Amino acid sequence: MAIKRPTYQRPDPSVDADARTRVAITLGDPNGIGPEVLLKSLHDPHLMPAMEPVVVGSAHVLRVHADVLGYSDLTIHTVDHIPDTIPNDGITVLDVTDGHAPAVSFGAVTAAGGTLAMRAVAAAVDACVEGTADAMVTAPISKDAIAQAGYTVPGHTEFIAERTNSPRPMMMMVAGGLRVGLVTAHIPIAQVAKGITKAAIGTKLEVLDTTLRNDFGIETPHIAVLGLNPHAGDGGVLGKEEEEIIAPAIAEAEKAGLKVSGPLPADGFFATQLDEGYDAVLAMYHDQGLVPFKALAFDHGVNFTAGLPIVRTSPDHGTAYGIAGKGMALPGSMRSAIEVAVTTAQHRRAKQSAA
Amino acid sequence: MAIKRPTYQRPDPSVDADARTRVAITLGDPNGIGPEVLLKSLHDPHLMPAMEPVVVGSAHVLRVHADVLGYSDLTIHTVDHIPDTIPNDGITVLDVTDGHAPAVSFGAVTAAGGTLAMRAVAAAVDACVEGTADAMVTAPISKDAIAQAGYTVPGHTEFIAERTNSPRPMMMMVAGGLRVGLVTAHIPIAQVAKGITKAAIGTKLEVLDTTLRNDFGIETPHIAVLGLNPHAGDGGVLGKEEEEIIAPAIAEAEKAGLKVSGPLPADGFFATQLDEGYDAVLAMYHDQGLVPFKALAFDHGVNFTAGLPIVRTSPDHGTAYGIAGKGMALPGSMRSAIEVAVTTAQHRRAKQSAA
Repeated sequence: MAIKRPTYQRPDPSVDADARTRVAITLGDPNGIGPEVLLKSLHDPHLMPAMEPVVVGSAHVLRVHADVLGYSDLTIHTVDHIPDTIPNDGITVLDVTDGHAPAVSFGAVTAAGGTLAMRAVAAAVDACVEGTADAMVTAPISKDAIAQAGYTVPGHTEFIAERTNSPRPMMMMVAGGLRVGLVTAHIPIAQVAKGITKAAIGTKLEVLDTTLRNDFGIETPHIAVLGLNPHAGDGGVLGKEEEEIIAPAIAEAEKAGLKVSGPLPADGFFATQLDEGYDAVLAMYHDQGLVPFKALAFDHGVNFTAGLPIVRTSPDHGTAYGIAGKGMALPGSMRSAIEVAVTTAQHRRAKQSAA
Repeated sequence: MAIKRPTYQRPDPSVDADARTRVAITLGDPNGIGPEVLLKSLHDPHLMPAMEPVVVGSAHVLRVHADVLGYSDLTIHTVDHIPDTIPNDGITVLDVTDGHAPAVSFGAVTAAGGTLAMRAVAAAVDACVEGTADAMVTAPISKDAIAQAGYTVPGHTEFIAERTNSPRPMMMMVAGGLRVGLVTAHIPIAQVAKGITKAAIGTKLEVLDTTLRNDFGIETPHIAVLGLNPHAGDGGVLGKEEEEIIAPAIAEAEKAGLKVSGPLPADGFFATQLDEGYDAVLAMYHDQGLVPFKALAFDHGVNFTAGLPIVRTSPDHGTAYGIAGKGMALPGSMRSAIEVAVTTAQHRRAKQSAA
């Protein structure tokens, strides 16, 4: 049996206020599993005590999910701006609904759900930019619901990049010491080869190197770069991009002072080279990086957006409408997303005060 | 400490001759790790007792590797044709060198090594076709060495397919219950999308279904088919091949009586759907299937060639010249290759005698 009684004694009163890291956590789509994994994560007594959470979304929606989980004695503090001091008991919710919270309808794609989800993201971004939060974690949204709500961006990353004027956002997947970046992401396989350019690889290596130094506290990051083709082209027999594009891009990055190795065959890398001291691996396309990442990370994978002025993470799963409201969702990925947000925010702060 | 003294009491004298499965194991490139992993596998007292091994290659080369491993009291029986009865002690070697064995030079690419490796493959194929062996296992060859020796085929699979007049050989990767087939294999990423046709998928599904029934003893195989694009095309946003090619190919296979599901997103499949009762998964291209396979199979992956009149397996690694002759090579994949060869040969025999 899981412990039934919520704790929510967070931050730990014994942790000095200055040492706390305040994380704005968006509720995500109200009809998906976002609020559930968020509640389960915050309920976990082993979650980092120095973490100071502010949920961004709707107190009403959070209450509905808490009731489903049997967390009925949960105290919810509703605020309309993030206060200087977060109460130690219960959960503080920055309510962005103006009192008009949508009805929760598990598994349903609704415009009201999309609107709430995106208003929460906007408010969390603004809190990070203004400094009332140190980092943000986003629970999953529904692409269809936000489209119904009139949002034209494809997802979180693009929205946050736009709102923070960031021209080079970069999706990374993180699970413990396994960190995977992508050169191309959400494009058809038929277009992948065209997307592999020296400039694209160079930019990604630069963003990756910077985030490893600043956000992950690695002094001299060593990045592995995968090949594009089977066996990394096998000396040109299975494709020329390795020789003509990837190797020259690596050489240029090395000239600029980065520590980079490759191009390496992807199948060998994820089978045997994970323990060889690389701090991150740059994959050429979505499935090349995400398929082994998810296979290895199981349910603890975290999506981290590099290249932003703020810290943002998210779990690596979606709204999972099919199991919403059933209490079945596993919170491992959300919990890890919160932990990565805290540690990266701390590394970034340490780097900035050292500079 | 590993046990130093070779056992080689195989087949177990207590196993009836009729119940034995004779496996022709080729030595592979004499300068790579093939002979080493072969010796270590046969040396393992836990390897299936009903397995009756015949090594095909060179007694001299085997002796050199045995000496490196400290297996100096190993008895080698050299034969020029496979006898009806294999001695229970030591290792029987079908010597294909006509007495002119090449000198072993660890890590060196040599024409003599390529010639020996391929003569062994040819002899093992012939033994399986003639019925003097029930299955064959191939140790790794060097593509460069066989090219120096004048062979124009790219590798084992094509050579064996040609020698057995098999128009539809299909590479599969096997590790326990995880079985991965590929629609396209050793081609550049830029050509993958063009290689995904209804006909290609249909043929692979047919070969896969047949081998699961005949060689893996599965009565009603259930095959998962992956999408080509990220998120299996995400409803057409990230590519049309799922809707226009893969789904229709699946529908046709179902009409023909096969049990097939998909197209499924590859990242989700290898993260969470492995335990959902699929007997095999058909990936669209090399890295989509092999990257997660190798990550999950670690050092126990086996390459199985479906669509042949004979049974053939191999370890999923190469000659590993860099560590040849050092005693460091892990035999897990070779050992598993021998075990898969034995069990598939037994299934096939049972199926044939039932028919």
